[in-house]
Amino acid sequence: MDIKQYLNHRCQEVEQALDQLLPPIEGPLAGHVEAMRYSLLAGGKRIRPILCLAAAEALPTDSRPLLPVAAALECIHTYSLIHDDLPAMDDDDLRRGNPTCHKKFGEAAAILAGDGLLSFAFELLARPLATKNISAGEQLHLIGNIAAAIGPMGMVGGQVLDIEAEGRQIELEQLQQIHRCKTGALITVAVQSGAIGGGADRRQYEALTSYGEQIGLAFQIVDDLLNVTGDSTTLGKAAGSDAARGKATYPALLGLEATRRQADEAVAGAITALNGFGEEAEPLRELARYIAARRK
Amino acid sequence: MDIKQYLNHRCQEVEQALDQLLPPIEGPLAGHVEAMRYSLLAGGKRIRPILCLAAAEALPTDSRPLLPVAAALECIHTYSLIHDDLPAMDDDDLRRGNPTCHKKFGEAAAILAGDGLLSFAFELLARPLATKNISAGEQLHLIGNIAAAIGPMGMVGGQVLDIEAEGRQIELEQLQQIHRCKTGALITVAVQSGAIGGGADRRQYEALTSYGEQIGLAFQIVDDLLNVTGDSTTLGKAAGSDAARGKATYPALLGLEATRRQADEAVAGAITALNGFGEEAEPLRELARYIAARRK
Repeated sequence: MDIKQYLNHRCQEVEQALDQLLPPIEGPLAGHVEAMRYSLLAGGKRIRPILCLAAAEALPTDSRPLLPVAAALECIHTYSLIHDDLPAMDDDDLRRGNPTCHKKFGEAAAILAGDGLLSFAFELLARPLATKNISAGEQLHLIGNIAAAIGPMGMVGGQVLDIEAEGRQIELEQLQQIHRCKTGALITVAVQSGAIGGGADRRQYEALTSYGEQIGLAFQIVDDLLNVTGDSTTLGKAAGSDAARGKATYPALLGLEATRRQADEAVAGAITALNGFGEEAEPLRELARYIAARRK
Repeated sequence: MDIKQYLNHRCQEVEQALDQLLPPIEGPLAGHVEAMRYSLLAGGKRIRPILCLAAAEALPTDSRPLLPVAAALECIHTYSLIHDDLPAMDDDDLRRGNPTCHKKFGEAAAILAGDGLLSFAFELLARPLATKNISAGEQLHLIGNIAAAIGPMGMVGGQVLDIEAEGRQIELEQLQQIHRCKTGALITVAVQSGAIGGGADRRQYEALTSYGEQIGLAFQIVDDLLNVTGDSTTLGKAAGSDAARGKATYPALLGLEATRRQADEAVAGAITALNGFGEEAEPLRELARYIAARRK
């Protein structure tokens, strides 16, 4: 299969859904909606929503009814980027090659754009889904799963640990915990959401969870690598910023070669986890390879 | 009935639930949990969770299974206070007589404490409830209702409009829209959540919604009045801050007397909306009177 073509197609599908689901830029709240749409529709790889859709496809089932879930995952990811970029946090001026939300709209508007996107994500997640694959009880499970993955013991907790660790010497184990919470949890739950929405049985759910955990790890390791070896133009954000900020990274702790090996091992593990699946899981396998090979 | 005693009892019930449901202060994320607990358990009237429980009680039904929902509403309210107090927003130093979250823990920690509380609220809302009054489908409806009430077109939107209106001349109609979104929506949805969780039929749901809308309005009008006529010690936050900041308020637009009359009318309207309910709705009626008469 042609993974580039697959990603392009899925990307368009997700962006169309986001555009249709978000409120239009009009009325007294036009400025607020504009700030949300600015960050949400400014490009991005759409990895999390695509993982959700590809997981459902692997089962195999029609993934289209899960588009609101996929869109919600991207809203959550974007909210986390907007808040992480704030002056009080990572204080970043560039994101995906454009001014960050607070640079463009001001700090108050950016905090509220993030808050708005997070609440809106749960509004999307609670809507009735146009599929019989998933009961209302399973949909509650899906929502609870996502909320846990992004909350105090998940993504938000990971950002707390990340900020606390800045400029301090930390061990590999702590770095792994930061990444598991900050990046891994949302990627894993994106795959799990596709699994639940696609009607996975327990065995399939566990295999897809294992896949999700390992590509979550691979994703972050490659992110660390790109921050060292990439250039700002390709990345659309400042390269070398981790080192400048005294952030612990895999390359800093393990060296470049061992870091690359860890990424390869995680990708291989993710693909092995899919052994029980057939041809329909090919997009997931290719996604794992793509995540390891990406340049931005 | 003795409303003070009722409120005390409900307050304790809610605070006990919050304390039990929140993660303990331990492990690598102890600081994060401490910041969330600091703002969440620093007093407060617990109006929103109590309204939820009292609405269920009015149906009449056992309100205890709804404690996680009530706790979630208070988590959401607290998140909104933490973010509204931030330097980029209202820049407040005091809340409930104590330093605001960012004054105590720093700005990054406060943003993340708010984010953590919001996500955690949805984790609570998605948990199976220990009652047969509400199906999984109705619970999804409850979650969607809350998410919509606090999102871009609800509470977050209200804060956007409020900030945009600062120092500008606005009409009564715009002020009403700000209040309906910023304060009214969460109060109304708290009552609606109790109604759904208590198994209300359509007629009861509509009556309770009307009650919720009118006490939401009364609550904000009284808040405006107290900001003019109250003192900082009783309020636990700066009195007169609205005027100093050039914020439009009911007293500024209507004068004190007409403002008091509007509050009284809203309370009377709320109580009239409960005409179809019996003795079990007495706490809701007393709550409406209490909201109008409160001094902080």
